[in-house]
Amino acid sequence: MPSGDLVVGVDVGGTSLFAAVVDTCNGKVLGKAKRKTKAEQGANGVVRRIVKTIRESIQEADLDIKNLRGIGVGVPGPLDPEKGVVFRCVNLGESWTNFPLVEALQEYLPLPVVIENDVNAGAVGEHTYGAGRGSRDMLAIFVGTGIGGGLIIDGKLYPGVRHSAAEVGHMVILADGPLCSCGARGHAEALASRSAIERDIRNALERGADSIVPRLLRKYKRTSITSRIIGEAYESGDKVTREAVRRAQYYLGLLVASCVNLLDPEMIVIGGGLLERMGEEYLVPVRRVFREHQVNKNSPFQPRVVRAELGDFSGAMGAAVIAQRRLAQI
Amino acid sequence: MPSGDLVVGVDVGGTSLFAAVVDTCNGKVLGKAKRKTKAEQGANGVVRRIVKTIRESIQEADLDIKNLRGIGVGVPGPLDPEKGVVFRCVNLGESWTNFPLVEALQEYLPLPVVIENDVNAGAVGEHTYGAGRGSRDMLAIFVGTGIGGGLIIDGKLYPGVRHSAAEVGHMVILADGPLCSCGARGHAEALASRSAIERDIRNALERGADSIVPRLLRKYKRTSITSRIIGEAYESGDKVTREAVRRAQYYLGLLVASCVNLLDPEMIVIGGGLLERMGEEYLVPVRRVFREHQVNKNSPFQPRVVRAELGDFSGAMGAAVIAQRRLAQI
Repeated sequence: MPSGDLVVGVDVGGTSLFAAVVDTCNGKVLGKAKRKTKAEQGANGVVRRIVKTIRESIQEADLDIKNLRGIGVGVPGPLDPEKGVVFRCVNLGESWTNFPLVEALQEYLPLPVVIENDVNAGAVGEHTYGAGRGSRDMLAIFVGTGIGGGLIIDGKLYPGVRHSAAEVGHMVILADGPLCSCGARGHAEALASRSAIERDIRNALERGADSIVPRLLRKYKRTSITSRIIGEAYESGDKVTREAVRRAQYYLGLLVASCVNLLDPEMIVIGGGLLERMGEEYLVPVRRVFREHQVNKNSPFQPRVVRAELGDFSGAMGAAVIAQRRLAQI
Repeated sequence: MPSGDLVVGVDVGGTSLFAAVVDTCNGKVLGKAKRKTKAEQGANGVVRRIVKTIRESIQEADLDIKNLRGIGVGVPGPLDPEKGVVFRCVNLGESWTNFPLVEALQEYLPLPVVIENDVNAGAVGEHTYGAGRGSRDMLAIFVGTGIGGGLIIDGKLYPGVRHSAAEVGHMVILADGPLCSCGARGHAEALASRSAIERDIRNALERGADSIVPRLLRKYKRTSITSRIIGEAYESGDKVTREAVRRAQYYLGLLVASCVNLLDPEMIVIGGGLLERMGEEYLVPVRRVFREHQVNKNSPFQPRVVRAELGDFSGAMGAAVIAQRRLAQI
């Protein structure tokens, strides 16, 4: 069953690799696989793990590699999709700087490979098969350790002139506010990400506040305050966590409003670990703040702020779609 | 000399009306005219003044109305270009609410009329004939009493789903900051507009600070601190004014950075009264702040932040271009 529509999509995360064999005609996932990234093995080590994960997903789909049209890979960092080179991946380590990922993968796999930024891929996945289906202009915002985004304009991924559009995590929301991972202050990522919540919880703990979080860290044998821990502490009514989450939701609402006031899209899709864990309830205050700050309040049409639907596999599915589209143009 | 390319563009400002007969083939202005808006005469009164201004510009061009293809009008407020109805114009008064401007103008003028938001028109003007010539993706930001913008994507005006894109004045830059004209807090307009500078100067004067501004208000017989007064006070080294301007420049730099991080355009064109008065020097600190906060610092290509070139007539020229394009589609 060889077909131009069967593509493997891969999402290379800081912690996990996801691969999915997608029938891009209908968005059906025929097989999938997941394994740890093990970034400490360096770029070449991770490439071998990506290859294994791809092979596993093809096997799960009961297909042969010859049945496939190509491979799309989403990577967490700036890159040049034409040259197939990753500029850098802060989360994955130094060995990814100027790494020729397409070339490296093609040494193992007899298929054309297309690479794209992981959040751009996630946005395309949600637009094609998820919460953004049928919309023309859509912005996806993924809230995790950082905050990333992907912009769909006129039904297509809008990459920007330098392939760095939709860096919503670095929009200024609170001038002179907390320090961001990029070195500047007051960006959305420093206010509304999981890391911002973690920082606020830790600050409260240092001030001696009472919280269930230290106990949960021991329970799950974690050193960082994960989305799961934040979710569990929030649900148990932990005051410190509730306050930190409430603040992050407020700033996320302001970010959504800023984006809507600039882009006036049909839809904002919000995804990422925190949303996956905490669900629809997380978005209620975000929507309220957004509405207070968006300028076109009186319009009968109001942009929808909705949850991503594809979960962990949005990036892999989007990478498959992007690969299918680019390869169809060759 | 009848031609499909000769169009009158009009810009309806809160204070003045501008009309220009434009040869849209080459951007040549064949005739222009200007008069006070006199908003107190109400929408129908202003319509008659618009008609006079248009007739004057045609006369100046030594043309007859029969030589013209149509009329484009830029209006400061949200509107429906398809229906030809203005939803409201805060600066022009209540009589503009749901005002059928196209119908009203066509009672006097035997030409098709197209309407557009004034800052969108200004952006199209700058993109077609001004500082943005030849760029593909461009954002224009006009700083005056308020802050407005217009977005060009893929060479075309990007209106957004509700025709309200590029409301850059209402992007949140300092959460919980000063009150904006829209009723929310911390928006760019409340931080970086001429009104924000005026507010800061007045606050300093109330605190008893020494400043040349009261003397300039008397000299020019003004009650509001105009761009001209701000410019003159700034140049004379007035500390209160310098401090207020410096703050506005800082926030404008943050706004530019936020827009670039979301859109990754080729170019940001900045215009409006304050820029017209203060010139290139105004942009130097804006560019510095922008560079510190934009995420893609290492790219060999950096988006340019440039001054608008068309001055008072950018809106009128852009309105002409928009009219020519829309009428060519009919």
